[in-house]
Amino acid sequence: MSYEKIPYKTFLAESETPETWFNLKAFMRDGHEPFLNPATGKPSTEEELETVFCKECVKQELNCKDAEIEIPGGIKSFYRTFRPSPLVRAYFLEKVLDTPAQIYYKFEGSNTSGSHKLNSAVAQAYYAKQQGLTSITTETGAGQWGTALSMAAAFYGLELDVFMVKASARQKPYRKEVIRTFGARVAESPSDTTEAGRKILREYPETGGSLGCAISEAVEKAIKTPKCKYVLGSVLDHVLLHQSVIGVESKTALDKYGVYPDIIIGCAGGGSNLGGLIAPYMAERLQGKNKTEFIAVEPASCPSLTRGKYAYDYCDSAKITPLAKMYTLGCGFTPSPDHAGGLRYHGMSPIISKLYDGGYIRAVAAEQTKVFGAAVKFAKCEGILPAPESSHAIYAAIEEALKCRLTGEKKVILFGLTGTGYFDLAAYKQYNDGTLTDYIPSEKDLEKSLNSIPAQKKTQ
Amino acid sequence: MSYEKIPYKTFLAESETPETWFNLKAFMRDGHEPFLNPATGKPSTEEELETVFCKECVKQELNCKDAEIEIPGGIKSFYRTFRPSPLVRAYFLEKVLDTPAQIYYKFEGSNTSGSHKLNSAVAQAYYAKQQGLTSITTETGAGQWGTALSMAAAFYGLELDVFMVKASARQKPYRKEVIRTFGARVAESPSDTTEAGRKILREYPETGGSLGCAISEAVEKAIKTPKCKYVLGSVLDHVLLHQSVIGVESKTALDKYGVYPDIIIGCAGGGSNLGGLIAPYMAERLQGKNKTEFIAVEPASCPSLTRGKYAYDYCDSAKITPLAKMYTLGCGFTPSPDHAGGLRYHGMSPIISKLYDGGYIRAVAAEQTKVFGAAVKFAKCEGILPAPESSHAIYAAIEEALKCRLTGEKKVILFGLTGTGYFDLAAYKQYNDGTLTDYIPSEKDLEKSLNSIPAQKKTQ
Repeated sequence: MSYEKIPYKTFLAESETPETWFNLKAFMRDGHEPFLNPATGKPSTEEELETVFCKECVKQELNCKDAEIEIPGGIKSFYRTFRPSPLVRAYFLEKVLDTPAQIYYKFEGSNTSGSHKLNSAVAQAYYAKQQGLTSITTETGAGQWGTALSMAAAFYGLELDVFMVKASARQKPYRKEVIRTFGARVAESPSDTTEAGRKILREYPETGGSLGCAISEAVEKAIKTPKCKYVLGSVLDHVLLHQSVIGVESKTALDKYGVYPDIIIGCAGGGSNLGGLIAPYMAERLQGKNKTEFIAVEPASCPSLTRGKYAYDYCDSAKITPLAKMYTLGCGFTPSPDHAGGLRYHGMSPIISKLYDGGYIRAVAAEQTKVFGAAVKFAKCEGILPAPESSHAIYAAIEEALKCRLTGEKKVILFGLTGTGYFDLAAYKQYNDGTLTDYIPSEKDLEKSLNSIPAQKKTQ
Repeated sequence: MSYEKIPYKTFLAESETPETWFNLKAFMRDGHEPFLNPATGKPSTEEELETVFCKECVKQELNCKDAEIEIPGGIKSFYRTFRPSPLVRAYFLEKVLDTPAQIYYKFEGSNTSGSHKLNSAVAQAYYAKQQGLTSITTETGAGQWGTALSMAAAFYGLELDVFMVKASARQKPYRKEVIRTFGARVAESPSDTTEAGRKILREYPETGGSLGCAISEAVEKAIKTPKCKYVLGSVLDHVLLHQSVIGVESKTALDKYGVYPDIIIGCAGGGSNLGGLIAPYMAERLQGKNKTEFIAVEPASCPSLTRGKYAYDYCDSAKITPLAKMYTLGCGFTPSPDHAGGLRYHGMSPIISKLYDGGYIRAVAAEQTKVFGAAVKFAKCEGILPAPESSHAIYAAIEEALKCRLTGEKKVILFGLTGTGYFDLAAYKQYNDGTLTDYIPSEKDLEKSLNSIPAQKKTQ
């Protein structure tokens, strides 16, 4: 089939949608370094992890063996309400860029939560319900994850407490209302409802909060509440596993047309979208079956891959969680409140970190004014207002397509369009008004955070 | 095929999407009463209408003959970015309601403008560009139409001035930012940039504005600007024509499964969604081929069908536009600022009005607390946060499905889910906080507005 015969949008039929998630780790020799229990310095056991997380999620977290893991019927039926997501050929963007490249994007934003986060929220809420829990807790930064989880909790009938980074809650009051509309409780973090929150408030009464701090509060609340567990929206292996539906659907759709990507681009905060998108293609790369280039795009103001350390670090700021080996800016890192582009987490998925360390992924740090510029160009021709997070991938895709214009190469570019910008209009306003500024952390700031990484890392 | 085998969501392939719009008027004996020129009391001529509207739209407005009108390639290619929209079987809602009815909805909200309005915005902007215009003007109330038109204007390269009802602009600042992001200018109406606006400001300096007033401003601006025309997002026949893609796609999808609706429900403000959704089915009704029941749902606080008069009235408050024969609350009608549920226009599409007058449509007025209650129930099980406007249709669909539970009838219900509530979270907040109140206009208020309808109506 000629590339020009490909539809603008491809929706798989329900019969073509995945029956299984794709476990990339099964293709990574030796997986990645295990979680460490900071108290013992030894790998966290299944039992230890189950004090915080749902049982089935812990099983998936530790599964390095099965390439495919079945999606239960109770999850597939909820997936039906918002999946399959469209795979879009960006004909209009190609035309505007006058590029010989073929650009495709997998659009995960056409559900009410507005992002790909719902893929894992559904799975985690389902497993919590199956385990007999009555409530779950979580944190949310930009609010995409909190929204997604509130929808899933409402669907399966679970109570939900969301600790929302205060700066974000103030900047996006309507995100909070979506979450409340689905019946969940929202506390601005740091809050006075947890020890972790009260401690931060005593030390930094004016703080706008951070994801690391909100995680501490949510974990504490889960541990102290009967029949309650904590769920996390990114970083962890089981979250990437759930997000593999993005990659599997993309590959099924592209395979129909005999199209194979030369370049795959994803924005990277905690790494869940990127890990899910690349999963089936990266597995083939690890088996020497392709030469596809994988690009992670992160904000210059929260550059965990491009400027962080590959070391054991805590997943949260209060140092309650296990230690993970990952690229990190230090668990004390707080991005500038000027930063509007999302992707604010201090660390990076251990899977993505390992692949990056192995040279399988290239990382790019993008400044936010350029990212918003790419977003607006994209919106005007492709008719989708993208999330600032997703726009990092758009920015890199445009760069790669323009390179093709110079070289004449007809590369196939696939990128992940993770979500919409409906709740980021305050940031777009800054861009429209010309008041958006770039914030890039100084060496001194970075050094300070990185020095806070605990001693255990050095034993590895 | 058994009803249970129908997919949750049906997306037509691009090859199955409509090549033509469906002109319901061709099936209405004698069409409906013509526009009148208020200066002469005679039917408006094509030339007179072309002083305000684009030529091709005027042709479509006056076309009572052709049942099908071709969709130009330049419009179809933009439609590809956001159409086909999904036809959804509401399995989860059916289960929650424990009804034997089958419920389907056509979801028009999964595009960046968040509503069906984009279907006509694309067409009108395309025709304006083809005619050699350089700019267009419009008004917007809730903001859906302004957003849609800003996307279309950006795509085709037209300048755009949007007069946004002041109360709405203040309540939904982010709607305004979406419109600005797509490069259009937004003025809060009444503004001091037009005579109509200045006059209203002198008389009512504190007014929050109305759609009728914003229309006056936009029409005035278009008339006074070279190479500029005014475009309207509802009410007119050519808008309903463009919206017929909703009905045609719905019918194609349902026909695939041998499903024929017993009841079709749409919310009704100006009537464009309802008119588009019912078009192919109403044509068969008019030919005696079905007994389908058609229900228009309007807010109790702006009840043009249920409490208005069927009379000639102006489309705007400053009485600049031609007179249309329609159900109207009087062109001076301003809904209560307490009213959060959208659908605020004083009149109703002449096509819908004529069909309602002929007994082909039943009208229901819904109170907004009940409408929001239906919206939240729907969101929790179907995973879509609906626009308050669309939620009027959900409310009525739930009522009909519950009637089926009582009677045991297995009716097939189709309703139009016109958009999402992403920019209506201030209203949802009121609902969540329990501070949403119902506002229903008093007889005295209504009498006052209705008395302002011009004398010309009496000649008919």
